[in-house]
This record gives sequence, structure tokens and C-alpha cells, in this order.
Amino acid sequence: MRPSRRAPDELRPVSIERNVARYAEGSCLIKFGETHVLCTASLEEKPPAWLRGTGKGWVTAEYAMLPRATHERTRRESTSGKPSGRTQEIQRLVGRSLRAVVDLVRLGEKQITIDCDVLQADGGTRTASITGGFIALQECVRWMMERKMLTVSPIKDHVAAISCGISKGVAVLDLDYVEDSEAMTDANFVMTGAGGLVEIQGTAEGAPFSEAQFLEMLALARKGIGELVDLQKKAVA
Amino acid sequence: MRPSRRAPDELRPVSIERNVARYAEGSCLIKFGETHVLCTASLEEKPPAWLRGTGKGWVTAEYAMLPRATHERTRRESTSGKPSGRTQEIQRLVGRSLRAVVDLVRLGEKQITIDCDVLQADGGTRTASITGGFIALQECVRWMMERKMLTVSPIKDHVAAISCGISKGVAVLDLDYVEDSEAMTDANFVMTGAGGLVEIQGTAEGAPFSEAQFLEMLALARKGIGELVDLQKKAVA
Amino acid sequence: MRPSRRAPDELRPVSIERNVARYAEGSCLIKFGETHVLCTASLEEKPPAWLRGTGKGWVTAEYAMLPRATHERTRRESTSGKPSGRTQEIQRLVGRSLRAVVDLVRLGEKQITIDCDVLQADGGTRTASITGGFIALQECVRWMMERKMLTVSPIKDHVAAISCGISKGVAVLDLDYVEDSEAMTDANFVMTGAGGLVEIQGTAEGAPFSEAQFLEMLALARKGIGELVDLQKKAVA
Amino acid sequence: MRPSRRAPDELRPVSIERNVARYAEGSCLIKFGETHVLCTASLEEKPPAWLRGTGKGWVTAEYAMLPRATHERTRRESTSGKPSGRTQEIQRLVGRSLRAVVDLVRLGEKQITIDCDVLQADGGTRTASITGGFIALQECVRWMMERKMLTVSPIKDHVAAISCGISKGVAVLDLDYVEDSEAMTDANFVMTGAGGLVEIQGTAEGAPFSEAQFLEMLALARKGIGELVDLQKKAVA
Amino acid sequence: MRPSRRAPDELRPVSIERNVARYAEGSCLIKFGETHVLCTASLEEKPPAWLRGTGKGWVTAEYAMLPRATHERTRRESTSGKPSGRTQEIQRLVGRSLRAVVDLVRLGEKQITIDCDVLQADGGTRTASITGGFIALQECVRWMMERKMLTVSPIKDHVAAISCGISKGVAVLDLDYVEDSEAMTDANFVMTGAGGLVEIQGTAEGAPFSEAQFLEMLALARKGIGELVDLQKKAVA
Amino acid sequence: MRPSRRAPDELRPVSIERNVARYAEGSCLIKFGETHVLCTASLEEKPPAWLRGTGKGWVTAEYAMLPRATHERTRRESTSGKPSGRTQEIQRLVGRSLRAVVDLVRLGEKQITIDCDVLQADGGTRTASITGGFIALQECVRWMMERKMLTVSPIKDHVAAISCGISKGVAVLDLDYVEDSEAMTDANFVMTGAGGLVEIQGTAEGAPFSEAQFLEMLALARKGIGELVDLQKKAVA
Repeated sequence: MRPSRRAPDELRPVSIERNVARYAEGSCLIKFGETHVLCTASLEEKPPAWLRGTGKGWVTAEYAMLPRATHERTRRESTSGKPSGRTQEIQRLVGRSLRAVVDLVRLGEKQITIDCDVLQADGGTRTASITGGFIALQECVRWMMERKMLTVSPIKDHVAAISCGISKGVAVLDLDYVEDSEAMTDANFVMTGAGGLVEIQGTAEGAPFSEAQFLEMLALARKGIGELVDLQKKAVA
Repeated sequence: MRPSRRAPDELRPVSIERNVARYAEGSCLIKFGETHVLCTASLEEKPPAWLRGTGKGWVTAEYAMLPRATHERTRRESTSGKPSGRTQEIQRLVGRSLRAVVDLVRLGEKQITIDCDVLQADGGTRTASITGGFIALQECVRWMMERKMLTVSPIKDHVAAISCGISKGVAVLDLDYVEDSEAMTDANFVMTGAGGLVEIQGTAEGAPFSEAQFLEMLALARKGIGELVDLQKKAVA
Repeated sequence: MRPSRRAPDELRPVSIERNVARYAEGSCLIKFGETHVLCTASLEEKPPAWLRGTGKGWVTAEYAMLPRATHERTRRESTSGKPSGRTQEIQRLVGRSLRAVVDLVRLGEKQITIDCDVLQADGGTRTASITGGFIALQECVRWMMERKMLTVSPIKDHVAAISCGISKGVAVLDLDYVEDSEAMTDANFVMTGAGGLVEIQGTAEGAPFSEAQFLEMLALARKGIGELVDLQKKAVA
Repeated sequence: MRPSRRAPDELRPVSIERNVARYAEGSCLIKFGETHVLCTASLEEKPPAWLRGTGKGWVTAEYAMLPRATHERTRRESTSGKPSGRTQEIQRLVGRSLRAVVDLVRLGEKQITIDCDVLQADGGTRTASITGGFIALQECVRWMMERKMLTVSPIKDHVAAISCGISKGVAVLDLDYVEDSEAMTDANFVMTGAGGLVEIQGTAEGAPFSEAQFLEMLALARKGIGELVDLQKKAVA
Repeated sequence: MRPSRRAPDELRPVSIERNVARYAEGSCLIKFGETHVLCTASLEEKPPAWLRGTGKGWVTAEYAMLPRATHERTRRESTSGKPSGRTQEIQRLVGRSLRAVVDLVRLGEKQITIDCDVLQADGGTRTASITGGFIALQECVRWMMERKMLTVSPIKDHVAAISCGISKGVAVLDLDYVEDSEAMTDANFVMTGAGGLVEIQGTAEGAPFSEAQFLEMLALARKGIGELVDLQKKAVA
Repeated sequence: MRPSRRAPDELRPVSIERNVARYAEGSCLIKFGETHVLCTASLEEKPPAWLRGTGKGWVTAEYAMLPRATHERTRRESTSGKPSGRTQEIQRLVGRSLRAVVDLVRLGEKQITIDCDVLQADGGTRTASITGGFIALQECVRWMMERKMLTVSPIKDHVAAISCGISKGVAVLDLDYVEDSEAMTDANFVMTGAGGLVEIQGTAEGAPFSEAQFLEMLALARKGIGELVDLQKKAVA
């Protein structure tokens, strides 16, 4: 039995609320159980300097946690002088994942920044950030199309993400904080709506894991991401 | 007529929702119209190093804005390497204001950190932070008393804050962003429930202001803070 | 009786010596008793980037203390990596106060930086910095007019500043370090030669203060600033 | 045909030279073709602060490139003020991979730091760092056993790493810089001598990849890592 | 003829005024012509951490220029985030030079920090800092002896410093800014009262210099430092 | 007898291996006994901003030690946030020394950066860096001439450097780490092939040194640098 009494292949309750930030071109509040992430999309009329004149745009992401999103208060990164290695790793992952479904030429010389701010953290903040970040991005594109800034959407497919782990020898889907702390193996998967793999990150926390275990986690992820993509579609319907 | 069609002495709609952060010892979401601030209180068992052995505790505050709380996205302070002068000025003000109503000896050798994170900004974020920060602090004290960590509350009185300004020659209460941008004079007032003055900050943005104008603003502030203290009392009732 | 044996409404001996820095376009050494501040004005031919093309200039200020200006040596801010919150607060205040009496359009696309370096500190360094900074600014404008860089002075009025406090229940003018450490309330006032209010900052250090106490301090400040403006006029006569 | 004329499942020539740093407790110079990494192990008698009193030790890693290891000179990270996100990601990966084969209780309250300094970079620097870092670690343990600081080795198994990619539709092993720049998918695998999986990182650079492609890369990695472990064994024989 | 009309072996007018900083344990204002340096000595009851328990004390120095000490305003180092290479080089030199004449065991477990703040700069700021820093140090020792913190002075000899250069082919003493900018070779010498060499730094700015030229500069320095030591003795008489 | 059993005027075995870095325009690995420095030259098509439009180029240097180049591991400067004072002092010295033999007008508007990375440190790293840095620079110029980017070499002479010291009262040449730690006086000399002096830095570590001792060291340096220049010539023959 999982600590949350969920079945091994069961997601936490997921909700996606659009249009929560008055000033952003796109936004949503996504909840994976007790993990809550506010995602906003901000449009800039110019791409980063290294893309000027290429006809291509850019999608990037930033990630942070409020200091008391967690059980113990964590120090603000503005106070410690720089984003931690973990923060940088996550925001690079979110940016890469979103760019995998965007046609940057079709976007044109613009930049969209997706900010993922974790209001409350109970495990899985990076996968919620990718899944919710996609909605904020999509809303931003809709906003641009309504204003005739784009005639064809540069978004090629959905993208979503979920974590899996080996907990007490069993492969399980969508770990919360308690499960994540105990799991021997922790893996994050990012896939498109069509089922293509965008990113795989698997880490043995204790003993190494086997290929069979890895394939079990991959199958769970495929199921979970399918459900998340359905929820994304409902959210914007 | 004010841009918001409010009377000169009229606050924006104010709401205070307690207990919004699962892990914090105290929290609230306070709204002054379209300005929304999430306030949390975090208890630490030890005071800062310079108070150890004195029998006294400490209350401190940190303040930040989400990057897209504002009309234009602002850069994260973790990226620019340090909190800006404005951020430091505000967090020092919030901390001083809250300490003005706390008996630090009665609190004992502990520290309470109030985090004020602006989710959406439409003027008056520092006054909303003080007013909401008080609620988070009060909730934290209640949490400590329920656990017998304190037998008598160290909170001596309420504290709340509001801005005033001279807009088109008229003194007005609780400026929103549009009004704040145009006002010739901008003042912030912090007062206790008993009406004592804790902090006054008045700044001429263009022409100097007169003593008469200042006294008009002070009278408006007294009325507004009285209403805010009533709302604080209702919120925890 | 005040520790310095002054009457409640008595300034410390104030002196202003002009033309003390060989290379600066304007300078003075101002003394409020044992508080000594070296103020210099540096002219730059270009305004900050955000003003280029607007026809307007800028006046800004920087503030620092020598490490052994104080009773105990303080660490250099170049060593700690950044100006402290207190330093930033003061230099923003000095800059705002000086700009209140300058017509930035008449100044034209130039920048004047006022550096206020505290050689010795005995309370009131920010008010001495504003009062002396005005003289450095005025000297710089005279230097520019002598060189036909300006035909009409952009300075519209004098500006000066003084602190007041409630010490042992009595309102007193121009606190020195000892008095400042003990005062229950500390307030800084910035006014023009014509008596207009530019900035008011009042802070309760212990118990809140009353409106009556505040008005007593305001009256003292008005008297003290009047005397300072007279001294400014004599210094440049 | 690969740019290097290698077969799809062929490693670059790999060499491992031990004992290259006079002062380090363990060291090697590892070459994967034109990628050259100097790995040293430094023993400290104390573990990091958060492990003191637990009876456990720690193994950590740092990674850097010499400025002219690359085609174009890159700026030193000491000049830019902090390690980049990429650097931090790699050194966290190297540390985790090495700890996966160390019994930290058997190591006892000590810390071993593995420094991986890239003298020349032609792709695959992180996989060479893990593979060579293991040798430096093993040499350090041998040094400790010779001095009776340890009676039983805390090293439980070998660990090595290799990259794979999908290049022109074909899965290939051990990408050099040219191939890496063009590959549509890039994956890094870390495995133990017994074949257990320690870390998997797969990233779609352009189009998403399929499960079949991923399994092809995994099979290549298994073959390559087997060969690297054999080379590790020969190097210390 | 030198730009200042001095003879090749002639110092600028030098003055040393003691006891200029009210709170410091020792201080002086030293002038080498238009170069003015405020030197203070600050006593700390504890040596730096690495000397605790050794019975030895430490003398260290810090150096800075006010932003408008120079012809053009220079940026504050607190703003640029760190002391420049030049600043660090000078403060290391000043500290080493002063320690050369102090018996650190006789000083005991204390630290004296010499702050050298350049109020006005016209060349030779580092040599004025050493020469004046010695006076501040000596005053601090006198202060300690008056309070019976020391019974025997730890100061073993005088120390002073001067610059020399090759200007238009001729060796000259004590370069001012104009001469320094044009000189082909620039050298700084630090010597004790007894004539021992403490530090020599000679740099070819354009063409290399010959041994004969170097010896000429050394002879000039010996003469100049002799005069400075006499002035140091008079200043404290 | 010296710890290394060398005669007082005897260099350590010196070797210079050219062309060790595949991607750099010039490179060498220089060894002064157990001190090993990898020197590379990187050509940039543009000079630094302050030289643009002047027709002149620039030669600069950076210096660093690998963390385990030394007996005890030293912390990376990227981790501590900035290059140390010692590092900055050395890289300024190396740059100045190399520029002393380069005609910057003949180089034209380009920049050559010499990176000196100490792989192993046993005293004398700065002198080895200058001596080896010259070879990397010369190789870079040869590379440019082969590509017709220069028709006449801008290198005017050789430059090399060596340390001397007073050890147990005797002047000795080329100190290793053990000797350097014990020496009472430490001096570094930089000279051209023609015997001109470029830089002299002499420091009393304990007692001051005499002019006679200094001249002895200068004579030893002249002999040693003569031998180094011969080795430089052989290395590129």
C-alpha cells in the first residue's frame, strides 16, 4: 500500500485553472495533489541577442519555490546570491521540454518566458511545472493569435511530464514527498501528446536499478502522461 | 473622480483569507483590490546569533514579487544576484512595523520570519504586506499557544498600514498603481489598533507638499487603518 | 538636560567649508558637531541610458562611511560584496531630496553624482549629507555656468534636512549618536528654503508615538532647517 | 559512415594513465579519443558538517574545463563569479554516480573529493569524468588501505559511463564533438560493473525519440560500458 | 626640468598631522603634495582565526580611494562587487611592509587594522599609505601602552616608502600623477629606519631598464626615505 | 647544501614541450622541476573595447591552479566567487611581462590571451608561467604568420623570469616550495633576451635585506634567465 493509499499506477488528483494572473499573456495554477505551481507566460517582442536576425524565436523557463512552500523554510535564492544547482537544472529541463513542441521559426523573433513559481511543494514540482508551463505557453499563443501577431500556431503537439519510482520494490507513478524520500530509484519522464520521448532522467538513489524496472516505470509514465494530456485538453476546452 | 471611481476616503475592497499555506505555522492571502500578497509565518526555535543568551526573540520579514506580478515582467532578484534597494527598504519596514506590537521578551529565544510574496501587484504592496503579515504572525502565535510553547501572547496590539497621496490636488486614500504613478505626493502610514503612530513615510514626487496636505493625509490614514484593523479582527474571529 | 547640554531646539555647531576637493566640479566638508561628511559633485556629459534623447538630466547620490568613522570599525562594503540595505536607503533618500529642487529639463542631458563620504559619524549622517550635498550641487552648477554650459541655473530652491526625536518624553532637535541610541522615536525631515516638505520619515523605535508628538517634532525641524538654509546661504556668499 | 569512420558500436581509443598527480591521494589521466580529463582524489579527514557524528563519509566531485580545452576559448568561471548551470549539473552527476558504488558507512567519517579537470574537450567530457573519476577514487582507497586507514575497501563495484545518440537515424556509441552537435538525440548512461543502471539521461534535441530508439541506445551503452570496465581493470592491474 | 619644477632628488612637500580621527586608536592625515591619505588604526582584541592560540598577533591593512579623489570619478568598489586587483595588490603591500617592523609575538593575540583612505590622489598613494600607516600604527601602540595593554613596544624600527622613476632618461624621486603617466619605468621602495630593504617593485612601462638605472633609483629612494623617517620622528615628537 | 642538493646558482631541470593543446593557436607545457604549467595562447580577432580604433592590439594573461596542484587541495576560485588577490597579482604580472616584448601596433587590432594553468605546483609558478607563456605567444605569432595574418613578427625580444632568495644567509636561484617556505627574502626577476630589466619584485619575509644581498640575487637571476632564454630558443628550433 502506498502512503497515499493510491494504486501503483494512479496519479494524484490533478487540477488546472487557467487565467489566474491578471497581467500575464498566459497563466495557470496547476495542482498535483498538494503540489501547487503558478505558471505564467510573458511575451517579449525581441528574442535573446544571439538569435537576432535569424528569424527564430525562443521559449525559456525560470523556476523558483516560495520560501515556505516546503515543510521547513528554505532560504531565498536572492539572499544566497545565485540560483542553486538544483534550480538551474530544473529550469533548463522545463525550457528544453517546452521547446521540443514549439516551431521556433513559426514563432518568429520573439521570446516567451515561462515562470514556474511553486507555492506549495509535495514532490513532483518539476513535472507539474512542465505540464502547467505548457498551458501557460498555449494561452500566450492564443493571446497572440487573437491580436493577429501569429496566424498559425507554432505549437506542434502537447507536452507533459510525470515522475515514477521504485518504492519497496514496486514501480509506482507520481511520487509525493514522502514516497520520494524513501524511493530507491527516481525517474522523470517528459513525453509529447503523440507519445514521443522528450526527456528521460533516471537516478538510482540507493542500489542500481535493472532494465526491467526501468521499463516498468516507462510504461507507468506513458499511462500517466496520457491522462495529463487529456486534462490539458479539457482545461482549455 | 478617482480612476477607480472610489471616494477620496474609500479603501479598495479588502479580503483576508487565513490558513492558505499547508506547512507554515501561520499564513494568509490578503487582497487590497488587485494587489494580492501571500504572507506566511515560519517559526525557528533559535533567535539570530546576536540575541542568543539574552532571553529575547526576534520577528523579521522578507518581501519579494513574483516576476509577473507586474504589468511588465521584472527580473528575478536571484538572477541579478541580490535584493534591490527597494526590496530591502520594504522588508526592513515590514519587520520594524511588526516588532512594534510584539513583546520580544515574552516571545522568548525564538525567531518568527514573515514572508510576504506578492502574487499580483496593483500598488500598495508594502501596506498590504504589513496588514497581512500581522495576521500570519498572529496565527503563528496561536499555533504556539495551542502547543503550549507560549502561555501569554507576546502580541500587544494590532498593526496595519495604508498609503495616501495628493492626486490632482486632493488627498486620497489607498492608491492603486495608476493613481500612484500620477500622484504628486505619496505617503505610507503604519499605526496600531490603539491609534499610535509606528511609521510615517512621506515623499514629494514632484512639487513639495504643505503641512496642511500632510495632515489631511494623516486623517485619511487614521480612518483607513481603523477599517483595516476591524477587518483583521473579523478575519480571525 | 540633553547629554550634549543643548536646549531641545538647539542645533549642534554647524560648519560648511566649500571647495575642499581639488578635482571635483563642486565640493564641501560639512560638520554637524562631530559628524563630518565630505560631499563632492561629479559632472558627467551624458545622462543615464534611460534618459537619453529625452532632453532631461539626472542628479543621483552615493553614500558611504569610512570604516573607522564609527566607534567600532565597520567592515568595508567592497569586502562584503554589496552596499547594505541601510546604505541604499540613505543614498536613495539623498538623491530624491536633491532632485526635488532641480529642474531636470533645464539641466539638460547631463548627470551630476553627489558623493557623500562620512569621515566621522556621530549621528545625523544622512541629514548632513543632504544639507552638504546641496552645497556641492550648487557649486557644480556655478562651475558649469562659469563655463557657459548653462545660462540659467536649474536649481529652484534650497534644500536641507535635520533629525528630531522624542528623548525622555521631550521632542528634541538634531540628535547625536548617544541621544539617537536612547530615543524612543526618530524622525528625519527634508524641507526646501520656502518651507515646503520634501520628505518625512518617522519611526517608533519602542512605543508608538502620538500625533501631538509628531507635530512638535515637525515644528522643531522647521526651525532647524530654517537655520541650516541660512548657513548654506552664508557659506556660498 | 560516422565522421570518425568508427562503427556505430565502436568506442574511441580509450587510455587510462594512473598516478599522474604528485600530491593527490589518487589520480589518473583518462583519454576518450581527443577528450582528455585529469582526475584527482583528495582525502579530507573530516566529512561535511551535516554528516559529523553519523559515522558516514562522503564522496563528492567538482568539474571544470580549462579555458582553451575547447575550439573557442571559454571564459573562466572564476571570472564570471560562479559555476554555470551546466558545470553544476555535471558535477552533481559525477558525485552521485561515484557514491552509487561506495559504502559510505565503511568509508567512515571522511570526505573524498574527486576533481575532474578537462584539459581538452572533444565531446563526452562527463562520461570520461565518471569513468576516470572512479580510478582516482580507487587509487585513493588503495592509498588509505596501504596506510591502514581502512581495512576493508568501501568500493562495492566498478562504475563507468558512456554517451549514445541517434545520428542520421542510427543509434551510435560514444559521440565526439562533431557528432554530438548534429545528433537529434543525446543520452548518457552510467552503469556498474555488474550491469546495474545508476543513471540514465536522454534528451531529444530536435524531434522526440521513440522507445525502440531508446532501447537501441541502451544496448549500445551496455556494450561500451562493459569495455570501459575491462579497461579500468587493466589500468590498475 | 620636472613638471613640478622639483630637482630630480626632491620630495614633494610632505606633512603629517596626527590624531585626526576621534574614534580610532591611532590616526594621521598624511600629504605628499596633492596626494592626501587618511590613515587610521583599529585595535581588535582577537587575532584572525588562524592565529588563535599561537600567542602571536597580526597587523593588516585595507586601502581605498574616495570616488572623486581622482581627476575623473571612479566607480565605488562596493558597487562593482569586489576590490579590484590593483586595490588588493596595494593593501597586501601595505600590510607586509608594516609587519616587517612589528614583533608579532610581543604584540600578543590582537589584531591592528590600518585603513588607508585616499581623499585626494596625485600619484604615490601607496607610498604615502605605508608612510602614514606607520604613524597610525605607532599611535595605536602608544594608546595601548598608556592603558598598560603592552609594556614593551612591539615596533622594532620605522618604515617608510617612496616611488622613483626614469623620466625623460633621468632618474627622479617621488613621482606625481603627471610624471607617473609619462615615466618609462616606475619603482616603489620600502625601507626601514636603519636602511634595510623591505620591498622593491620595479616595472618597465615601455622599454626595459638597465641595472645602472635601477641603482640610481635605489640611491634616490634611500635619500627620500631617510627624509621621510625624519619627518615621521618629528610628527610624533 | 640546498634541500634539493643543487648549487646556489643552479636551476631545476627545465623542459619545454610545444604544441600540446590541439585547439589553441599556440601552447606549451613547461616544467621547472616538479612545477608544471600548461600555457596556451588564444587569438581573438578584436582587441578589448578601449583599444578599438587605435590600431593597437593587446596581450593579456590569466592564471589559475588546479585544485590539487598543491600539497593540500585548495578551493576552486569559481566556488569562492572571484579570483584571489594573489591570482590577480600574478596574472597582471604575466601580462605586463609579455607586453614588454611585443610591439602592439605591429600586432594590430587583435587580442592574444595567454592562459597559464598550473597542473602541479612546487614553487616558482609565476616565473614558469612567464617563461612558458612567451613560448605560447611565439607559437601563436608563428601560426598567424603562416596564415599571412602578420607579415612581420610583433615580438621584439625574448622574455623569461626566475625567482631568487636568501636562504640560510646565502643567495640561491630558482626556489622550490620547501626552500621558498623557509627563505627570509624572496625576489622575482623578469628580463629580456638582451638582458634588459622588465620587472623586479623583492620582498623581505622576515628581516629586511641589504643592498649587497639584493645585488647577489640580481646576478644569479641574470645567469638563470640567460639559461632559460637559451632553452626557449632550443624549444622552438
